[in-house]
Amino acid sequence: MGIDTRQRILTATNELFRHHGYNGTSLSQVSKAAPATIGSIYHFFPGGKEALAVAVIDSTATVYRQLFESIVAETNDPASAFSLFFDQAGQMLVETDFIDPCPIGTIAREVASTSDPIRRAAEAAFDSWVEAATDYLVRNGIRQGEARDLATLFVITTEGGFVLCRTKRSIEPLHAVARTTSPLISSALASRSPTPSKA
Amino acid sequence: MGIDTRQRILTATNELFRHHGYNGTSLSQVSKAAPATIGSIYHFFPGGKEALAVAVIDSTATVYRQLFESIVAETNDPASAFSLFFDQAGQMLVETDFIDPCPIGTIAREVASTSDPIRRAAEAAFDSWVEAATDYLVRNGIRQGEARDLATLFVITTEGGFVLCRTKRSIEPLHAVARTTSPLISSALASRSPTPSKA
Repeated sequence: MGIDTRQRILTATNELFRHHGYNGTSLSQVSKAAPATIGSIYHFFPGGKEALAVAVIDSTATVYRQLFESIVAETNDPASAFSLFFDQAGQMLVETDFIDPCPIGTIAREVASTSDPIRRAAEAAFDSWVEAATDYLVRNGIRQGEARDLATLFVITTEGGFVLCRTKRSIEPLHAVARTTSPLISSALASRSPTPSKA
Repeated sequence: MGIDTRQRILTATNELFRHHGYNGTSLSQVSKAAPATIGSIYHFFPGGKEALAVAVIDSTATVYRQLFESIVAETNDPASAFSLFFDQAGQMLVETDFIDPCPIGTIAREVASTSDPIRRAAEAAFDSWVEAATDYLVRNGIRQGEARDLATLFVITTEGGFVLCRTKRSIEPLHAVARTTSPLISSALASRSPTPSKA
C-alpha cells in the first residue's frame, strides 16, 4: 500500500511535469492528481517538490535507458537501431498529443541554475544514456572515443528534437535527425577495425 | 523614454527567463528588475506575462539569427562556420556561468502544451533559424532538401547541446556536436553539383 501510494505520487508528478514543467507544478496539484494528502507526499518525499523532481528524473532515466536497450535489441544494424528509436519517440509524441516525452530536459533547463540536487540528477540521467549508447556502439566495433561522441550526439538530438517537435506539433524534425545521423553511424561502422566482425 | 522603458522591461524579463524559466518568473520580479511599475508593464504588454514571453522570443530569434549570419560571414568554409558557432556558444555559456543562453527552448518546453501564442512564437523562431541556415548552405551549393535537413539538425543540436552543457556545467557536449556534425557538412559539400563553384 505504501509502495502504491509512493508510485501514484511519482506517476502523477511525472505527468504534471510533462504538461507544465517544474515551476508550473504545485504540490497541491500533485496531491489532487495522485490522489494523496500533502502529509503523505512529505512522508515519502521529505524534501518536497525538489525531492520529487529528483525521484522523477531517476525513474525516467531508467525507463528511457531500458527503452533504448530494448529497441537496439530488435535489430542487428546499429544505423537502423537509432532511426528506430527516433521513429518510436515520434510515434509516442503523436499518441500523447505532443506533451513532453521527457520531463528531464525541461526540468534541467528550468532549474539548472537554481537547484544543484536536480541539476546533478539530470546530469546522472544524461550520463547513463550516453554510457548505454556508447557501450552499444563499442560492442558493435566502433572505437571508444568516436562511440562516445556519437552517443552524446544521440542524446543531444533526442532532447533537441523533442523541443522542435513539440513546438511545431510535427515529428518531421526527428525524421530529419534520423536521415542526417544514420550515415554517421554507417560510416563509423564501415571504418571500424575488423576485430569484432563475424565474417 | 517609452522605448527605453519597454526595452528595460524586455531585457529584465529575458534575464529572468534565462535563470528561472517562464513559470518560475513573476511579473513582480520583472517589475523589480526592470525597474518598472506593474502598470507600466501592462501599458507596453497588455497581454501580461504571455505577451512578454512572445516579445522575448521574437527578439531572441532575431538576435540569434543575426549572430549566426555574422559568424558564417567570418569564414568561407561552411564546415568550419558551424564549428565556430558551437565554439562561440560554448564560450558564452562559460562566461555567463552556464545560465540558459536561449530562453526559447525552455519556455517552449514549459508551455508548448498550454499556451498556443507562445508555442507559435517559438515555432516561428526555430523556423527562421532553419531558414537562415538552409539559405546559407544552399548558397554554398548544397541542394535544398539536404540543406534543410542539415539546418534542422543544426538548430536541434544547438538546443539539445544547451541542455546537456547546462546540466553538466561543461561545454564538452557542444564540442562533441561540432566533431560529429562537421563531416556531414564536408561530405554534403563534396558531393554538391559543380554549378555554383568558383573554380
